[in-house]
Amino acid sequence: MTEKTPPSNIQLPEPTLRRLPWYLAYLSTINKNDTEYVSTTRIAEALDVDPSQIAKDLSFLGIRGKTRIGYQVEALEEKLQGFLGFGRSHNAIMMGAGSLGAALIADSGLQRYGLDIVAGIDINPDIIGTRINGVEIFAPDAVETLVKKLNAVIGIIAVPVNSAQGASDRLVEAGIKAIWNFTPSRIRVPEGVVISNTSIYSHLAVMYNRMSLLDLQ
Amino acid sequence: MTEKTPPSNIQLPEPTLRRLPWYLAYLSTINKNDTEYVSTTRIAEALDVDPSQIAKDLSFLGIRGKTRIGYQVEALEEKLQGFLGFGRSHNAIMMGAGSLGAALIADSGLQRYGLDIVAGIDINPDIIGTRINGVEIFAPDAVETLVKKLNAVIGIIAVPVNSAQGASDRLVEAGIKAIWNFTPSRIRVPEGVVISNTSIYSHLAVMYNRMSLLDLQ
Repeated sequence: MTEKTPPSNIQLPEPTLRRLPWYLAYLSTINKNDTEYVSTTRIAEALDVDPSQIAKDLSFLGIRGKTRIGYQVEALEEKLQGFLGFGRSHNAIMMGAGSLGAALIADSGLQRYGLDIVAGIDINPDIIGTRINGVEIFAPDAVETLVKKLNAVIGIIAVPVNSAQGASDRLVEAGIKAIWNFTPSRIRVPEGVVISNTSIYSHLAVMYNRMSLLDLQ
Repeated sequence: MTEKTPPSNIQLPEPTLRRLPWYLAYLSTINKNDTEYVSTTRIAEALDVDPSQIAKDLSFLGIRGKTRIGYQVEALEEKLQGFLGFGRSHNAIMMGAGSLGAALIADSGLQRYGLDIVAGIDINPDIIGTRINGVEIFAPDAVETLVKKLNAVIGIIAVPVNSAQGASDRLVEAGIKAIWNFTPSRIRVPEGVVISNTSIYSHLAVMYNRMSLLDLQ
């Protein structure tokens, strides 16, 4: 793990952490040949966020804009990238190489955000030994060896619901430091292990409900 | 759209809506031959949610458990499925069939949750006319015709950041009712259109930050 920028070991409010990637995404759309500086007002207009909120969020990174000029675009982009951990590489093991698991392995976008899936695990003998996007799929009993050999720190869970807790336990026992859960099931981890839930299907439920309220279904 | 269960046109608190899929996921792990009834206590233990919270969440669905017995598993499962909109089919157009877009098209899990991706859109001439998982990829100028012909109500955005707003505008103009945004960019929609954000990469940022706080990176 290379460390070009200072580590982001500052406790940030979660809403701020969720907004920072918006700012980064916006900066990436700016043509740097045309535009050296960007103001909070301009970011605010593009993203529909209050300018003072943007200034406050960015102050957590220890940088302030220049009065009446704003932030230097490239410097801010690099800072955000580093701060969010997207500039470092984090090795990850994918538990479950079925439909969603294989899809995530195939998503090269994750690599640009600092996530390197270095191995996949599945119980299906037909896919064990095959490769998806260059990533080899192994049987579950290889987890412990793989975590150590490949320096994996993150485990991604995309197995069927009733195998989710077991898959997580296996990873934690092998020394994994964070679990990224894509299943709709609740996973428990011991203290000191990070758990992050991305429940795609829960988001769908919220969307369907909003649609039916608007009588759009 | 078939309608086996009453439509879920009740305004639910979002935390409740996010928990309902957990209950559904848990119920799906129960062997129905062995177990006819399940109590809130048992669900609570499995999911680490307060039993009274579960009873409250489920009361929104208009069903109550029997004292000392609990809920009939199959009936509750069916009710949740219907209520969450997972039992109906919603046609969707995928904007962007690159890495993430193709991955989502390939994820057959979405279909089990009521989402049918019926067409993909991409600007890359090499993939226009091809099929992913049986879903045909079209050029952007086909959007309007496709939305109408295929009765699409949801548009999924998985294009590069600086094309996200344009892709959404195009869908809304064509009559789409809800936008599911997978990009880290902020998308604006007119009133009456539902917007739902699943920012996978923002979740990564939150996870990296928690890891660095625990000195785990």
